[in-house]
Amino acid sequence: MLAIGIDPGTAICGYGLVRLNGNKLTPVEYGAITTHKDLLPEVRLLKIYNELLDIIDEFKPEIMAVEQLFFNKNVTTAISVGQARGVILLTAAKSNIPIVEYTPIQIKQSVVGYGGADKEQVTFMVQKLLNIKTKPRPDDVADALAVAICGLHSSATLFRKGLIK
Amino acid sequence: MLAIGIDPGTAICGYGLVRLNGNKLTPVEYGAITTHKDLLPEVRLLKIYNELLDIIDEFKPEIMAVEQLFFNKNVTTAISVGQARGVILLTAAKSNIPIVEYTPIQIKQSVVGYGGADKEQVTFMVQKLLNIKTKPRPDDVADALAVAICGLHSSATLFRKGLIK
Repeated sequence: MLAIGIDPGTAICGYGLVRLNGNKLTPVEYGAITTHKDLLPEVRLLKIYNELLDIIDEFKPEIMAVEQLFFNKNVTTAISVGQARGVILLTAAKSNIPIVEYTPIQIKQSVVGYGGADKEQVTFMVQKLLNIKTKPRPDDVADALAVAICGLHSSATLFRKGLIK
Repeated sequence: MLAIGIDPGTAICGYGLVRLNGNKLTPVEYGAITTHKDLLPEVRLLKIYNELLDIIDEFKPEIMAVEQLFFNKNVTTAISVGQARGVILLTAAKSNIPIVEYTPIQIKQSVVGYGGADKEQVTFMVQKLLNIKTKPRPDDVADALAVAICGLHSSATLFRKGLIK
């Protein structure tokens, strides 16, 4: 099974495609869609939408895994990330890919085995699980790979629920 | 000039198309795109995206006017409305329509002449300015018409800034 993990953002939108074959995880492609802050918001959203659709068309992932958003403080950031997230969910709907969502704790639990893990531990385990020598940069890419791994780990549950075939 | 005003939301997305000819405002079309809460979030976003694109294709508005979002309390709502807003801004970018944004105070100022006006006053003035006999329902439709009117009122400024031709 091939999953695309996404770390939503307007300036940097991390993505990571990971394949699960038996028990083996393989990184297929990863990187970040970036948009310049001087562009109009709608132009930035269109760039994310078009580039993500291109990636989906090229690699044809079977599920999209996205982190659930929680913000305690900055509501302006919540709206901005929400806008990017809306466009990202739309690419999945347009491509008929089921979306699976996880909380940060679920992702850390799945990748590190401990819901309270810090960023460095997550990145370390992502590199180890995927056998990636160079640290994925920026952090958004490691986060996208982590949520993809989490999505694949829970794929047995998805099968049971009939969400994927 | 023909403007489409939008009141973004996932359950109810109000829209209102208003034409300005000289000093005369004419309502062209208005209503709401609704999505059922039992649908998956991405399916709701796709419905909003597709229906709004259809409306834009049919009426070919020259500008899209959208209220700027401010939330003081509920961050979960901010993310949800942000997601709908992202998809709405995307329809404008896909259709090459410039987006103009206004604060609630600017909209009330423009429609009622007083930034502290309440919902009933806004609806009353929308009906009066557009000569609409029946009160637009739900409130989201009146709000969408109000932001369209605000966009048209400020069109002189837009011309000056070279944002529209």
